[in-house]
Amino acid sequence: MSAVQAVVDAGGAAALKVMERVELRMSELAGGHGPLLERHAGDTIAAGGKRLRPLLVCLSAGVPVPESDGLVRAAVAVELVHAATLVHDDVLDGSALRRGRPTVVASGGRLAATATGDLLFSRAFAELAAGGSGESGDERTVEAVRILARACSELATGELMQRSDAWVATVTVERYLERCRLKTAVLFRAACQLGALAGAASSTTGQPERDSAIESLGTFGEQIGVAFQILDDILDVAGPPERTGKPRGADLLDGTVTLPLILARQADSNLAAAELRSITTAERAAEVCDRIGATGALESTKVRALELVAGAKALLPELPERQRAALDLVADGVVDRYA
Amino acid sequence: MSAVQAVVDAGGAAALKVMERVELRMSELAGGHGPLLERHAGDTIAAGGKRLRPLLVCLSAGVPVPESDGLVRAAVAVELVHAATLVHDDVLDGSALRRGRPTVVASGGRLAATATGDLLFSRAFAELAAGGSGESGDERTVEAVRILARACSELATGELMQRSDAWVATVTVERYLERCRLKTAVLFRAACQLGALAGAASSTTGQPERDSAIESLGTFGEQIGVAFQILDDILDVAGPPERTGKPRGADLLDGTVTLPLILARQADSNLAAAELRSITTAERAAEVCDRIGATGALESTKVRALELVAGAKALLPELPERQRAALDLVADGVVDRYA
Repeated sequence: MSAVQAVVDAGGAAALKVMERVELRMSELAGGHGPLLERHAGDTIAAGGKRLRPLLVCLSAGVPVPESDGLVRAAVAVELVHAATLVHDDVLDGSALRRGRPTVVASGGRLAATATGDLLFSRAFAELAAGGSGESGDERTVEAVRILARACSELATGELMQRSDAWVATVTVERYLERCRLKTAVLFRAACQLGALAGAASSTTGQPERDSAIESLGTFGEQIGVAFQILDDILDVAGPPERTGKPRGADLLDGTVTLPLILARQADSNLAAAELRSITTAERAAEVCDRIGATGALESTKVRALELVAGAKALLPELPERQRAALDLVADGVVDRYA
Repeated sequence: MSAVQAVVDAGGAAALKVMERVELRMSELAGGHGPLLERHAGDTIAAGGKRLRPLLVCLSAGVPVPESDGLVRAAVAVELVHAATLVHDDVLDGSALRRGRPTVVASGGRLAATATGDLLFSRAFAELAAGGSGESGDERTVEAVRILARACSELATGELMQRSDAWVATVTVERYLERCRLKTAVLFRAACQLGALAGAASSTTGQPERDSAIESLGTFGEQIGVAFQILDDILDVAGPPERTGKPRGADLLDGTVTLPLILARQADSNLAAAELRSITTAERAAEVCDRIGATGALESTKVRALELVAGAKALLPELPERQRAALDLVADGVVDRYA
């Protein structure tokens, strides 16, 4: 049984139903915007990924997961934004494959991929705004748009920061963590906040409790999101390629300075003296990955990630037991990816 | 006195105030998102362009233009989307200069430009959603998000269509017009609709009249938007470069089949037989532009655009006289660009 399945089970039968509705809607969107979108983004949006973010949306709404249209829309919107960032990332990286299939940029070129990403971003906002009936529905929809727009702005800022910091060997741990927050964790935060917001529509909870739940679930999401990115950065160094599906050291080759490298440079003066721009071949990148591994930096990096996950789980004592247990499973799932 | 100034005068002193607030807000946004956005997009969003779309937003709200926060936000959101599309277009075209300054892609590279465009898109939605207080405010905000999201989706679809049709010599007039609608006119439509929506907040008009005004102003915007694109395509063939600031035939060089070329190929069998992909140098492109001009296709293309503008102006009889007169001036301004 997959980790996601276990979490869905913990969320109750309704979680499964809502996730199925999310899948259905994603398929509709992949096929429903004419042949151009279908050709370019059908794979990315219809058949992709672990659906971790929609799952966070669902479970943040409550357990049993409330089967509301608003919740499905929020989950779809978050996954569309995720898909949009993947499509644009692939343009920037020039990646040829994602999830074993040709990327949009590989099959359609840069122009098609840029436009496809833009289309997915705007569809996400259209999806959120398709809801809203009655006064409090409209108020929640406006709040949802605010949450998603803020996350999208921060994701783009994170990309700019990564670009700006490329090949800068002096990047600090703090700046690295802020980059992880911006380029990855803010969408986990938004997923949890949007779920909590949609869940509030189905409950009788008062405004102060609702705001407090949205805030603590958002922080939970942000912390596991940072941990997710840190563990991703470990995998880039540790591989092995047959498991990750990509060669080791991609971050080194595009100049992205990650926590394993920062810590390894503190421990190994040869690494500290190495010129990052001289790492230009897969062989050389793999060698540097081995050196990073030899310093023990991967283990100390992993400790940081696990601390974040433990801290995230400790943020949820106010939640009902079943919901807390389901979200704990998601947090553990982020770590299991690495194990 | 510039054409825009004349229109602003027609919109009353309040139009000037609102447009000044739009400029102020654009400057704030250029400077207020950290050094990365300022470096990359400051020029594009703070100092650029004719502000034709914000002007349409303002005048669609009514004359005298109501000085509401919602109207300023709507105008800023539309201009941010316009700026986002410019930044992404420049990535795709690899353009080095826009409005006489280096493009984002030229100064920051493709990655920075893609992320900057994404940031501008998400800021547009954040700007719309920053409003909304009280029930009917929230309802209008949700409707505004819907209008803008739809326009953004269509803009991206238009880009995909242009890419898909590149170097396809058999593109029909109908398909060309649909592409103009998608890649350009839908944002003019959204500008007018958002203005009408914001204007309705300041008036006592009933729901049916409001919906009818939004619809007819949207169609007005769409028609002058298509005319705007057609005239732009004429300028690409006609130049002269010292006036347009760019060499003639850029569309020919990137395979974009426009109305002047379609009509010229119907009139000139040599042109009809020419292989579009063989046009690869600026000299050859200029030659083909001359051939297109010699067929009279520029004049018949212009007739189409003028018919659209005249038709657009005829759509507004229900509007108050001063508002109609101001919008007529904008429509004429679209044509004057060419004259």
